[in-house]
Amino acid sequence: MNFQRKLDKIVKKNNSLVCVGLDPDLDKLPKTLLKKRDPIFEFNKAIVDATADLVCAYKPNIAFYEAEGIAGLRSLKKTVDYIRKQYSEIPIILDAKRGDIGNTNEGYAKFAFEFLEADAITLHPYLGREALEPFLAKRDCGLFILCKTSNEGASEFQDLRFKKEELYKIVARNVSKKWNKYGNCFLVCGATYPDNLARVRKIVGDMAILVPGIGAQGGDVERVVKAGLNSKGQGLIINSSRGIIFASQGTDFAEAARRETIKLKNVINSCRVV
Amino acid sequence: MNFQRKLDKIVKKNNSLVCVGLDPDLDKLPKTLLKKRDPIFEFNKAIVDATADLVCAYKPNIAFYEAEGIAGLRSLKKTVDYIRKQYSEIPIILDAKRGDIGNTNEGYAKFAFEFLEADAITLHPYLGREALEPFLAKRDCGLFILCKTSNEGASEFQDLRFKKEELYKIVARNVSKKWNKYGNCFLVCGATYPDNLARVRKIVGDMAILVPGIGAQGGDVERVVKAGLNSKGQGLIINSSRGIIFASQGTDFAEAARRETIKLKNVINSCRVV
Repeated sequence: MNFQRKLDKIVKKNNSLVCVGLDPDLDKLPKTLLKKRDPIFEFNKAIVDATADLVCAYKPNIAFYEAEGIAGLRSLKKTVDYIRKQYSEIPIILDAKRGDIGNTNEGYAKFAFEFLEADAITLHPYLGREALEPFLAKRDCGLFILCKTSNEGASEFQDLRFKKEELYKIVARNVSKKWNKYGNCFLVCGATYPDNLARVRKIVGDMAILVPGIGAQGGDVERVVKAGLNSKGQGLIINSSRGIIFASQGTDFAEAARRETIKLKNVINSCRVV
Repeated sequence: MNFQRKLDKIVKKNNSLVCVGLDPDLDKLPKTLLKKRDPIFEFNKAIVDATADLVCAYKPNIAFYEAEGIAGLRSLKKTVDYIRKQYSEIPIILDAKRGDIGNTNEGYAKFAFEFLEADAITLHPYLGREALEPFLAKRDCGLFILCKTSNEGASEFQDLRFKKEELYKIVARNVSKKWNKYGNCFLVCGATYPDNLARVRKIVGDMAILVPGIGAQGGDVERVVKAGLNSKGQGLIINSSRGIIFASQGTDFAEAARRETIKLKNVINSCRVV
C-alpha cells in the first residue's frame, strides 16, 4: 500500500500522531533482558506490544543496530519482521539517513525496501534530486528528506541564506514542488526549531513532516503541534525515542513506555483540538 | 596509526594515488565465482591480491553489501578483515556517507571503527560540525566529508551561492578551517568537476581529497590531477571502481583489474611529473 494512505489510515484508527523511536542501547536495556538470546529484539518486541494501539509509526534508527555489528542488524531485521507480521497496519520508517549517487542508492533502496521491507526511509538532500532517483521511483515507499535537523549545530549550513532564503527552505521547496511527482516525498524537521517548522509548513502545504527531537532533546510538544499541523489538523509524525523506551529501566519498562506514549499522545491531541 | 601518516607511507611505498573501489555487484561477478560459498568475498580477495602493490587505499561502498542484506555485510566484514590482515599498510576507506545527530553517530562510528575496524569513513556535511563530534573526536580515523559530489545533479544545492560563495566552497572552508582540530578531516570532490576541485584545492591547502568519478562516471584523469594535486605533488586519492573491478567479467577478471590499475596509476603519475 502507498505510504501516505497507510499513514492516513493508522492516524485515524489510533487517533495518534506519535511515532516511537526504536533506538535500543545495550547499556540502557533492563538488566533482566540481557540474559536473553536477543536482548534488543526482546526489548523492541515488548515496547511494540505495549504501544501498538497508540502510535502512527515506528522508527528504528539503524545506527543503534549497526553499533552491535551483524548481530545488531539481525535484531533489526527480526524487529521489523515482527512489526510487519503482528501489526501490519503500522508503517515502519527506517531512520538511516542515506544518500549516495544514483547507481549506489539502488543498493540502499534494496536493503531498506526488499531486505528489511520497511515502509519508508530518511535521506540526506545534499546530492540533489537526480541522485535520489532510485528512491523517488519507488512510488509506494515514503521518503523523508532531511530539511531542518534537531541538533544544536544544525544552522551551520542549513541556515545559510541564498538570495534571502535559507538552505533548509530551499530544500523544503524543491522537495515539495520538484521532487514529489509520485506523492512519496516527506520532510524531517526537528522539534527543537518550531519557528522553522512553521515556515516549512507554509512552503509545503499538507505534506507529512517527521519531527524528531521531542523529550530528551528538549523540543516543546505544544509549540511543535501548533507550528506544524496541516490544514487537516494532522500531517505530523512526532517521534520520541529515549523519552518513551527508556522511561523505566526496571522490569516495568514496557508499561512505563505505554504510559509515556499515552501521555505524549494526549498532549498532542489536546493541542490538535482548538 | 594516524590516517594521514598511514596514507603518506603507502603513497610513497606504492608510488600511487590510486584507490580501488570494492563495489561488487552480484549481477556483474564472473560466473565461475557464483558457485563459491561467498562470491563477493572471493571476488574482492582476488582483486585485492592482484592490486595491493599498486594502490594507496581500498574503498568498499557499503551500499553494495547492504544490497545483499546480512549476508552482504558478512562479506564486507570478511573483506575488510582480509585486507587488514594481509595488507595492513593499506588504508581502508568505508564509503558509507553517514551523518546523524551526535549520540546517534556514536553507533555509526562504532560500526565503522570498532566492528569493521576501517581506517576512514565518508560523511555528509548537512548536519554541521557539532553533530559529527563523535567522529571528529577519533583522532586516528580519517573523515572524508562530502564537498562537491560527482553526480550530474550535484549542483542543486551544492552550487547555491551564499554571499557569492557556493555551498560546496563553504563546506570546504569550514571543514578545513574549523573542523580539523586533529588533522583527521578530508574532503570528497567528484572527478567530473575538475574546475570545482581546483577551487577547493585553493581553499584547503594540502589536505587530501578523495576523488571518485573516474572511468564509468566520465571524469578526466589528467584534468583531475592537474586541478587537484597539492604543493607536494600528492594529496589526491583517485578512486576507480567499475573501470577496474569489472574490466573483465571472465576468469581473467583479476589480471584485467591489475592491468587497469597499472594503467590508471601510470596516467596519474605521468601527470604528477611536470
